[in-house]
Amino acid sequence: MYSKDSHSLHYAIPVEKIRYDERGLVPAIVQDYLDGTVLMMAWMNQESLQRTLETQETWFWSRSRQEFWHKGATSGHIQKVQSIRYDCDSDALLIGVEQVGDIACHTGERSCFHQIEGKIAAPPGDTLSQLFQVICDRRDNPIESSYTCKLLAGGDNKILKKIGEESAEVVMAFKDDEPEAIAGEVADLLYHTLVALAHHQVDLKSVYRKLQERRR
Amino acid sequence: MYSKDSHSLHYAIPVEKIRYDERGLVPAIVQDYLDGTVLMMAWMNQESLQRTLETQETWFWSRSRQEFWHKGATSGHIQKVQSIRYDCDSDALLIGVEQVGDIACHTGERSCFHQIEGKIAAPPGDTLSQLFQVICDRRDNPIESSYTCKLLAGGDNKILKKIGEESAEVVMAFKDDEPEAIAGEVADLLYHTLVALAHHQVDLKSVYRKLQERRR
Repeated sequence: MYSKDSHSLHYAIPVEKIRYDERGLVPAIVQDYLDGTVLMMAWMNQESLQRTLETQETWFWSRSRQEFWHKGATSGHIQKVQSIRYDCDSDALLIGVEQVGDIACHTGERSCFHQIEGKIAAPPGDTLSQLFQVICDRRDNPIESSYTCKLLAGGDNKILKKIGEESAEVVMAFKDDEPEAIAGEVADLLYHTLVALAHHQVDLKSVYRKLQERRR
Repeated sequence: MYSKDSHSLHYAIPVEKIRYDERGLVPAIVQDYLDGTVLMMAWMNQESLQRTLETQETWFWSRSRQEFWHKGATSGHIQKVQSIRYDCDSDALLIGVEQVGDIACHTGERSCFHQIEGKIAAPPGDTLSQLFQVICDRRDNPIESSYTCKLLAGGDNKILKKIGEESAEVVMAFKDDEPEAIAGEVADLLYHTLVALAHHQVDLKSVYRKLQERRR
């Protein structure tokens, strides 16, 4: 990853090398840079890509309104560009962003791809984020039969005891060098850690942010 | 998430509701269902979407060759469909897949979006996957000054001791209920767990797979 100063963003994307289609447009996929969630897809022309590089906020071309569209200009939900990649054919862009307000969709949902079978679904990102959202849902809308709800009801002394147990089991599984057991025990430790985060209202993304900061 | 039986995939996507463009095409973003990595973007028409739903493997429309393209038919790198979403405008698809061989790009790279500034970059997915790849690179190409390399050189007894320490620090941070300290200590625990996984050649994705299996 490179730092997000304007110079390196310019260097990273040779705007004239991108292959725009017969309408002069290229699809731009927007992804949360922390958890990989695909937030939206929109279109850029050469000028909107240029503006995106210069301002380090996303600018698209609205096909319906035939005008430039500075994402978040009215809603405040701007997207701070962290990285821009183009694909092996140079005809698609992938933009890693920090989504202000954590809302990209005009419906108020985090991602435009928020539905599965007409119901609001877990975020289209990594496994931990999906699981974390399910755990937060259980916290906010308890179900009696749920193991997660029982843990949460037990509070710190129940949840943190499990973290102690699971971390010891992780150490033992590594010592035994059994890949299946290692994967299972690490999964257990991660799950219980997510429950503790949910219990303390600390977002998983703040953990990812710490890890990203250290890499810079 | 829904199970991946044919019926529910059909139900999830009303093929006739999708808004195809003037060429009869809709962009399809393909994402690793475990870590959120964006693997590629290609185009579907109504018939290729139909075939994708029926076979539960991705089918695209090749604009250059003007023919159907069953991804992986020659390379063996097929994509097993786990979920299909469409966006709030019904004019873009997001397909969660299990990528056979973990290679989506014709160059042999995992993702078509594999470059930043002309160099192979960490996967365009979640923070942990990116960090895990960096750690595996350090393992395979050691750098003397790297803390990760020092840990790896110390082997299990050094790495696992850190897991014990960090898990105790996680417990204390939660007990103190300090959001900043919690995020930092959980980040430390995750980092050291990734180092242990890399040391034992266990892929982070196998941990994610365990967590996904339990949710089904």
